[in-house]
Amino acid sequence: MHISKLELKKAYSRVRPFVLDTPLLSNTYLDDAYEAEFFIKCEQFQTIGAFKIRGAANFISQINKEDLQKGVVTHSSGNHAQALAFMAYKKGINATVVMPKNSNKLKILNVKKWGANVILCEPTIEDRVKNANEIVKTTGAILIPPYDHEYIISGQATAAMEMFRKVKDLDYLITPLGGGGLLSGTAMAALFFSPNTKVIGAEPVAANDGYLGFKNGIRQDKVEAKTIADGLRTTVGLKPFELIKQHVSDIWLAEEEKIIENMYTYWQQVKHIIEPSCAVPLAAIEAKKKELKGKRIGIIITGGNVDFNSLPPYVG
Amino acid sequence: MHISKLELKKAYSRVRPFVLDTPLLSNTYLDDAYEAEFFIKCEQFQTIGAFKIRGAANFISQINKEDLQKGVVTHSSGNHAQALAFMAYKKGINATVVMPKNSNKLKILNVKKWGANVILCEPTIEDRVKNANEIVKTTGAILIPPYDHEYIISGQATAAMEMFRKVKDLDYLITPLGGGGLLSGTAMAALFFSPNTKVIGAEPVAANDGYLGFKNGIRQDKVEAKTIADGLRTTVGLKPFELIKQHVSDIWLAEEEKIIENMYTYWQQVKHIIEPSCAVPLAAIEAKKKELKGKRIGIIITGGNVDFNSLPPYVG
Repeated sequence: MHISKLELKKAYSRVRPFVLDTPLLSNTYLDDAYEAEFFIKCEQFQTIGAFKIRGAANFISQINKEDLQKGVVTHSSGNHAQALAFMAYKKGINATVVMPKNSNKLKILNVKKWGANVILCEPTIEDRVKNANEIVKTTGAILIPPYDHEYIISGQATAAMEMFRKVKDLDYLITPLGGGGLLSGTAMAALFFSPNTKVIGAEPVAANDGYLGFKNGIRQDKVEAKTIADGLRTTVGLKPFELIKQHVSDIWLAEEEKIIENMYTYWQQVKHIIEPSCAVPLAAIEAKKKELKGKRIGIIITGGNVDFNSLPPYVG
Repeated sequence: MHISKLELKKAYSRVRPFVLDTPLLSNTYLDDAYEAEFFIKCEQFQTIGAFKIRGAANFISQINKEDLQKGVVTHSSGNHAQALAFMAYKKGINATVVMPKNSNKLKILNVKKWGANVILCEPTIEDRVKNANEIVKTTGAILIPPYDHEYIISGQATAAMEMFRKVKDLDYLITPLGGGGLLSGTAMAALFFSPNTKVIGAEPVAANDGYLGFKNGIRQDKVEAKTIADGLRTTVGLKPFELIKQHVSDIWLAEEEKIIENMYTYWQQVKHIIEPSCAVPLAAIEAKKKELKGKRIGIIITGGNVDFNSLPPYVG
């Protein structure tokens, strides 16, 4: 796999018609708490309420017209599913999405809203892949993987590219780590457009396959994933893992309790709804106060599609 | 009481150093649902997370230096208390706030954060006033009422004034109705700066003193106020009532169930945290679909200081 600077620039042009250049906001409560300068990329305000539209748009824009008519298929716990359903709606083609049956209800509803077929499966990567492959076989639809593909990685890179156009000299750029599409794309964007920025992944302790793989140099292909961060209940993909190993500076971990606490604090302070997954970087930096003091820190808030039925109780 | 066009212009200048010109946003989910054009004034992003800073800033800016040194005092269920505490902090003076003991916990914490003294009282207007008067007597502090004063009304008017500078030909402008400071101020702003705009108050059925007073022409001085909309658990003030009777087009009512439903829907769709009180206009317009079709409708979202401990369950 080769992701070049030119490829990222092309991805940027491809996604432009479908993707909002979301706000990059300052944040006084984080600035005060860390004596640092924060730059928050608000992908919860993206079309479909999450960054995943970027990868889907970049992939689907590269399929020729004839092949597109057979439709598209994917497996996803939610936001990638919504992204694909939205893009299929835009292109006037069929979409089928295989979703783990423990997926966030709102995300399932939103997928259906765009006219896609939903197939619920067991919440394992094996059952997701099996179901998706069956549909490919029977319909000829094109599989759009949620993260393990260079088109997806290049598409997700465009969020960081938008940031680097607006803010120079970021010392850190932190994203959540689930399948690794966003983190690896962000690392490639930094490599080409902001080489002095350290890219950091943030992962729940309760789904730490990425952390373990990064530290040992060997990708973990299983994860228990009992985290509240429903967007991160997946193993890091093969392609993202290779890029992460090479271009990411570190992976920081976050405890469940801190994830929940930071999500509600963000809601209270900023008045923006963010998903539990987005609070993982906020929780992970708590142990890094010394290191972050005086720095310029970017954080990508990945989405705002919260299932209010499955929220943990607020403790405050 | 006389509130002139010049007085509103002066209020606008007075509050400017302390108040953000909050975003005025479009809203596609409301536009689609009503086949209308919505303009949402986002006062949840105001300093202290609510519009109440406007009235407090306008009032305190008119007190002379000598009198200010005796400090200020008020009674409020929350957002006005925060506004006063913040203004006192800015001016370097003492503030004491009497808060009903059933007030939103976050609001109490935020008042304390700005260094104000908090005195908890019974959740009745009588006990609030009694406690505040005692402090005036013993300390000589100046009482800053939460809504029943022309300085407060003129200050709250500045939210609508900012809207009228940005958007022309609003057919409707809808605000929640609690004590009436915002609604009466908004009506005065429309009178002078957008005379073709109908100003509407929205009130919970469970705290409908404003509605009854408006319909009968006689102010109600009691209200049961068991509504979830904690910012609206108060009777309409004397001065606001006179202005509302004269300059407001109508009061629309909202059922509790619809208030809660609309709050969560707004959170989901817009990814902005709004208080239950802000969902009262959103719930009240549900019965007015025919009337609103094709219109240009302004809504003031009043604040985002939510106590996550006391939220009703989400039903979705």
